[in-house]
Amino acid sequence: MTESQAGVAAGSQPQDTISRFAQTRSRTLDLCAYLSPEDMQVQSMEDASPTKWHLAHTTWFFEAFILKPYASDYSEFERDFQYLFNSYYNGIGPQFERANRGLLTRPSIDRILAYRNHVDEAIQDSRSHFDGIALHEMHSLIELGIQHEQQHQELILTDIKHAFFQNPQLPRVLAGEKAWSLQADCPLHWVNFDAGIYSIGYAGNGFCFDNERPRHRIFLEPFRLASRLTTNEEYLSFVESGGYAHPEFWLSEGWRILQLGSRSAPLYWRKLDDQWFQFTLQGVKPLDPSAPVMHVNYYEADAFARWCAKRLPTEQEWEVAAACGTAHPNLKDPPLWAPAATVGGDLRQMLNSLWQWTSSSYSPYPGYLPLPGAAGEYNGKFMVNQYVLRGGSFATPSGHIRHTYRNFFYPGASWQFSGIRLADSGP
Amino acid sequence: MTESQAGVAAGSQPQDTISRFAQTRSRTLDLCAYLSPEDMQVQSMEDASPTKWHLAHTTWFFEAFILKPYASDYSEFERDFQYLFNSYYNGIGPQFERANRGLLTRPSIDRILAYRNHVDEAIQDSRSHFDGIALHEMHSLIELGIQHEQQHQELILTDIKHAFFQNPQLPRVLAGEKAWSLQADCPLHWVNFDAGIYSIGYAGNGFCFDNERPRHRIFLEPFRLASRLTTNEEYLSFVESGGYAHPEFWLSEGWRILQLGSRSAPLYWRKLDDQWFQFTLQGVKPLDPSAPVMHVNYYEADAFARWCAKRLPTEQEWEVAAACGTAHPNLKDPPLWAPAATVGGDLRQMLNSLWQWTSSSYSPYPGYLPLPGAAGEYNGKFMVNQYVLRGGSFATPSGHIRHTYRNFFYPGASWQFSGIRLADSGP
Amino acid sequence: MTESQAGVAAGSQPQDTISRFAQTRSRTLDLCAYLSPEDMQVQSMEDASPTKWHLAHTTWFFEAFILKPYASDYSEFERDFQYLFNSYYNGIGPQFERANRGLLTRPSIDRILAYRNHVDEAIQDSRSHFDGIALHEMHSLIELGIQHEQQHQELILTDIKHAFFQNPQLPRVLAGEKAWSLQADCPLHWVNFDAGIYSIGYAGNGFCFDNERPRHRIFLEPFRLASRLTTNEEYLSFVESGGYAHPEFWLSEGWRILQLGSRSAPLYWRKLDDQWFQFTLQGVKPLDPSAPVMHVNYYEADAFARWCAKRLPTEQEWEVAAACGTAHPNLKDPPLWAPAATVGGDLRQMLNSLWQWTSSSYSPYPGYLPLPGAAGEYNGKFMVNQYVLRGGSFATPSGHIRHTYRNFFYPGASWQFSGIRLADSGP
Amino acid sequence: MTESQAGVAAGSQPQDTISRFAQTRSRTLDLCAYLSPEDMQVQSMEDASPTKWHLAHTTWFFEAFILKPYASDYSEFERDFQYLFNSYYNGIGPQFERANRGLLTRPSIDRILAYRNHVDEAIQDSRSHFDGIALHEMHSLIELGIQHEQQHQELILTDIKHAFFQNPQLPRVLAGEKAWSLQADCPLHWVNFDAGIYSIGYAGNGFCFDNERPRHRIFLEPFRLASRLTTNEEYLSFVESGGYAHPEFWLSEGWRILQLGSRSAPLYWRKLDDQWFQFTLQGVKPLDPSAPVMHVNYYEADAFARWCAKRLPTEQEWEVAAACGTAHPNLKDPPLWAPAATVGGDLRQMLNSLWQWTSSSYSPYPGYLPLPGAAGEYNGKFMVNQYVLRGGSFATPSGHIRHTYRNFFYPGASWQFSGIRLADSGP
Repeated sequence: MTESQAGVAAGSQPQDTISRFAQTRSRTLDLCAYLSPEDMQVQSMEDASPTKWHLAHTTWFFEAFILKPYASDYSEFERDFQYLFNSYYNGIGPQFERANRGLLTRPSIDRILAYRNHVDEAIQDSRSHFDGIALHEMHSLIELGIQHEQQHQELILTDIKHAFFQNPQLPRVLAGEKAWSLQADCPLHWVNFDAGIYSIGYAGNGFCFDNERPRHRIFLEPFRLASRLTTNEEYLSFVESGGYAHPEFWLSEGWRILQLGSRSAPLYWRKLDDQWFQFTLQGVKPLDPSAPVMHVNYYEADAFARWCAKRLPTEQEWEVAAACGTAHPNLKDPPLWAPAATVGGDLRQMLNSLWQWTSSSYSPYPGYLPLPGAAGEYNGKFMVNQYVLRGGSFATPSGHIRHTYRNFFYPGASWQFSGIRLADSGP
Repeated sequence: MTESQAGVAAGSQPQDTISRFAQTRSRTLDLCAYLSPEDMQVQSMEDASPTKWHLAHTTWFFEAFILKPYASDYSEFERDFQYLFNSYYNGIGPQFERANRGLLTRPSIDRILAYRNHVDEAIQDSRSHFDGIALHEMHSLIELGIQHEQQHQELILTDIKHAFFQNPQLPRVLAGEKAWSLQADCPLHWVNFDAGIYSIGYAGNGFCFDNERPRHRIFLEPFRLASRLTTNEEYLSFVESGGYAHPEFWLSEGWRILQLGSRSAPLYWRKLDDQWFQFTLQGVKPLDPSAPVMHVNYYEADAFARWCAKRLPTEQEWEVAAACGTAHPNLKDPPLWAPAATVGGDLRQMLNSLWQWTSSSYSPYPGYLPLPGAAGEYNGKFMVNQYVLRGGSFATPSGHIRHTYRNFFYPGASWQFSGIRLADSGP
Repeated sequence: MTESQAGVAAGSQPQDTISRFAQTRSRTLDLCAYLSPEDMQVQSMEDASPTKWHLAHTTWFFEAFILKPYASDYSEFERDFQYLFNSYYNGIGPQFERANRGLLTRPSIDRILAYRNHVDEAIQDSRSHFDGIALHEMHSLIELGIQHEQQHQELILTDIKHAFFQNPQLPRVLAGEKAWSLQADCPLHWVNFDAGIYSIGYAGNGFCFDNERPRHRIFLEPFRLASRLTTNEEYLSFVESGGYAHPEFWLSEGWRILQLGSRSAPLYWRKLDDQWFQFTLQGVKPLDPSAPVMHVNYYEADAFARWCAKRLPTEQEWEVAAACGTAHPNLKDPPLWAPAATVGGDLRQMLNSLWQWTSSSYSPYPGYLPLPGAAGEYNGKFMVNQYVLRGGSFATPSGHIRHTYRNFFYPGASWQFSGIRLADSGP
Repeated sequence: MTESQAGVAAGSQPQDTISRFAQTRSRTLDLCAYLSPEDMQVQSMEDASPTKWHLAHTTWFFEAFILKPYASDYSEFERDFQYLFNSYYNGIGPQFERANRGLLTRPSIDRILAYRNHVDEAIQDSRSHFDGIALHEMHSLIELGIQHEQQHQELILTDIKHAFFQNPQLPRVLAGEKAWSLQADCPLHWVNFDAGIYSIGYAGNGFCFDNERPRHRIFLEPFRLASRLTTNEEYLSFVESGGYAHPEFWLSEGWRILQLGSRSAPLYWRKLDDQWFQFTLQGVKPLDPSAPVMHVNYYEADAFARWCAKRLPTEQEWEVAAACGTAHPNLKDPPLWAPAATVGGDLRQMLNSLWQWTSSSYSPYPGYLPLPGAAGEYNGKFMVNQYVLRGGSFATPSGHIRHTYRNFFYPGASWQFSGIRLADSGP
């Protein structure tokens, strides 16, 4: 791996990386403050993992990609962990079965915390001997591990939220956080973009994932984007007008899935005594009409757009728009834990509000090169049948998101913090 | 429910029941001494339950069948528990989905222990007001709850053993217990029984389950029983002679299941470097040739018997033999945690060694009457497609087992402490 | 195999067997008179087989068990047929996958008819050379093949009925047959039987299946049997009083299955405009209130009995009653294709009306010996998890049924001509 | 629907359409010449349909979209057919369950042929009264029905081939056709294309499907295409070098599927005595090394490309190349029934050889408008999780294919006549 592929910013200093490493590792633990050892044990579906497993796997990543290959004096914490906490890297070795992660009651959470300390110290210890790797390359790898851990910080929240939702008592994931405030009035308008050749993909000197490269040219016909995300109120109109009962709004596969299940509203919505509620990280709350609708899957996002006689944007359109300077930065304060409110401007809620489904299937950019070695399995092998989401969510760590960032999930997934931005073909 | 249906011994005193209640409740907690909150959280398959759930459900039983209907001054601990910890009693109300018990991270183990205390105090408090129930009837219900909890004590062990087996590190359930000793030499011989009319079913004044009644007459043709259980060594001969690869030894359904999976030896057996090991409550141990084979399912027991040109006993034959006075009492000392050794005599290992598969499908005795009310769901509604096991195991609490006792599991079940006693038709 | 195991009647002449062979083979084809090649191709579920396959498999049986082992000058019709049309005899060789029988469009029905002719001629040709088998033993084997084919005659009807039911146009299996007549008034009464030692199992010199032997002694407590089968009218009361919505009437497993599906009445019942209809071999007919209810599975039969505060008989009770001389012979004229009417007397509709579910799990009699060789797979390997039905149905060929005859199906099966006779414990 | 959306060529005469209608209808029946009624009955998997159903459904299409809405004097053949032979058009009404099409033994093939005649006559009868539709619009609809039927002509072959493959006797679909000839020597070379803005999508006045529109601009970075399809010999090298056992070549989802099954070579390949064979429409043949590999799914095509350090083309690249005039026309004579041979030139085997997997997920072109009404369900609702194939196959009817034609299947599908053309990023 070279710096140009997944590197730290050209000007960043090694000490900065180490400092960010420590902050990131610490923040992961902060997220678990309200969780008991039992909470951290549970796995509610194959797609989700126990908190405990996330804590161990993010640690394993530093051990497997940095300490074991390059730190000559590193003493492995426990041999079995290489197998138990490998997610999907065949290049490193076999993996414990994903669906059974919730059955690993041992190692205990205490032992996993000790594992974290052991690895943290080895990474941070200035006396460690790293052989066969240039300093800046090692820092690139540490940066990759930091970014990886940041991704898992968000997954810790989405996964435990899903687990708690299986409990009829609907516990809160987070307690004591202040609720988010919303600006009530923000009418949707359309922002136009001209046809033309644009370039997309990461162009800077900082960190990016391999799937954001290479930067390349595309041609776009004229298009328009909604100035803000779809609100609960707007989506509720779709729900209450019978949207879930009319096949004409749905992709065939989405309609088939609807017929199998009992969903007639987004995941986490519940109607009680004629009032709608939503399960949030802070427990059950009345549905806020002006907040962005969240936890919709691709089929729901697409059906809503069709009901509106609109469509979802492609990821190319989304990125071009986000790069045009019309996007309000909308950077959030330390965690809000709920979609940021609409606050006026040209393109609102582009970043750090909700992940926005695009109509683009996740595929390699022209000339895509995966990272060398096992790290090449990070992104490339998932480039089929998944759809790209853009923009990050309120739960995405500060500084982690970019307008070139490509997240991806299967179209049936709704347990992520995913929302809808409408698009339309140009005038 | 009348005393004659499921009563305490005629001469037993109420204070004895209360004392046994306290001992039983306490012993359940002793079984969990080596388990962490994470261990107690996990559910490895739908048939098994988390330890935590067992602790709550056995408490719920006293609350649902005694305190709520009869204790006029009882204050319910938490309303949702009626739903969360009801196993399968439709007469009491709906139940939380069985397969998802492992997802209930809340209530925490601490809260469940508080629930136990709350109910224990209410049962034991001499000042409680019980209305609409005679004292001896209430003690019959308490006795039913004690027996129920004793059943779950064994399930706590079998279920956590199964869960730990899913962990590649194969943890120990119990630590520090002394290993069992075995008498090496005990040849198998056959004990003969004459044709005739016998009576089976519970006849005493003590406690029994409704499925052990009424005592009734049966006719048996002459038969023979093996003097002891089948040993690991004997079963290993079947395994190593290719028993799992020859359909002629197997019931059609058993053979079909074998083709689906990868079993070619009993559950918990592993061959490493040409030596056989067995996963036990105390971790992995070399296979002891003279110990009884355990964790076989009905199909395996039946196939082994056919390979021997023998058969399994019916439950009638087993009970008649056990009642004939030739059965060595074989009562065990405080927990051995492994099948009792063969020690000579006429019929050995009949009680408290291993549950013994019979060829009898679980069905009602002629004139069977379930308990009245929701307690009638305890046994009767399961009388299809399951097979009767007799004799208790080393993990069955002392005093819980009787020679009339009818346990039952699906024929594919192998996670119980189940073994084989051969039978044959008479000379 | 000796004559005493599965033989023809001691006094029967070989020519009689050959004559019955020809009649049986011919009658099988008569059953298909209304079926097109397309009808005979189809398989509606794994438990059912295409008509075409039945025609070939019954032929294969004579080839595999008689011609190939014993007829030295027999020329095999087509080598692949040994594999394609073997049902489940591992002793003969591997089998084509059962669930895929409906995919075998070749060989064509014409070729299968040619196969039938080829085998018929070889069996009937007096010049054939049979080596290594005594004449009476060969006739025993032919008799076994005849009985086997008679079983498949009934299956041809139940299987094609099930297939046609999948077609929204609900075609008729049989056309032009006269409808059955019913005597309207036949109140149910109870016939009492005393406690005592009885013998059951086949005792004569004629043909029987191995599972009917050996005759052996049993003890029965006093019991009573309903004088006739449960009628549609009686069962309808159960249906309309909400029987399918109340768990207290159902075995736990039966209730679980009900929750998965959408059944709220017997298979083949349909309610249209407030009137009940039933799909029959002759198409859709209004439900006849006085006809016996049919196509109930074990769970339905058991639930209905519990709703009546009665129970199902054991197979021992049923056989003892049938043997007591109080059973009206009720032999039917050439096919009626519908359950025989109730016509007065002590025990009506015991034989050739509907198969009657018993509460007995299918298991070996004491001292049971399967036939030697591959024919031993005929019955013995299915003796688990199935329940015994007695009495034959209106579709069972004349002369095929006996009061010792043991049919068996899984408790969830309802596509057979199965009905209900209530029992009760004695006075 | 307007002519510009899915119309006939501007200059085509109505009589031409009627004449093509008659030819197409007749050719469909020709394809079934070797099939018996039993062959035409069978459905081997949910994705495939019985021949008989194809014959009826293509007829239904003309009835449902033309005769019933517009022919005022049309007399419906049979009312139930609207339901039975509707594939997936919710706008027309509910549909008989797809997975059960093979259970419809009635209507018989004879009745379906009568249905075809009935509809053919109504379409062709010059005295029919068509109301509310302009003549050219009606001819557009007839053209749509012709194109639809041509698609089903190919499906008849792929579906029956799959069904016959389930039969261990591996029958031939076609008899008596002359085998295809191959030119042995045709080395692969690469054809380069420059970066630039191109237009893709249908631009003419003839017929096209709605998914080929609108024509729009795209930008392509430089790329290269292989001059011919991948051969069996080349793919065999991948197979024999262990390609199916190395996860590094496979998309994660493709690898997961491989682990579930037993595939280690393309569908229809078999190795017998160290020689490779392939099941073809004309039965089992030795694998021809120089013929294009066929019946690979998307995962196999993608894995092979990665093994070659190449990739699959996007559909945009494929179409631009096909439109550049370098593609050898390669139009086939009346059916060859096997992939056309490589015959030299710049880009060979682009059309009518094998469908070529592209790396493009099936999605709408910018500005895509589905046809109005129920016909709008033809394409649009399937635009998720499927991948585009281009070029047609040897089994695609002459004149049906275009270089703008977009076929689509799920990436796991391998029963279509699908092959591989490699691509690479430009120099």
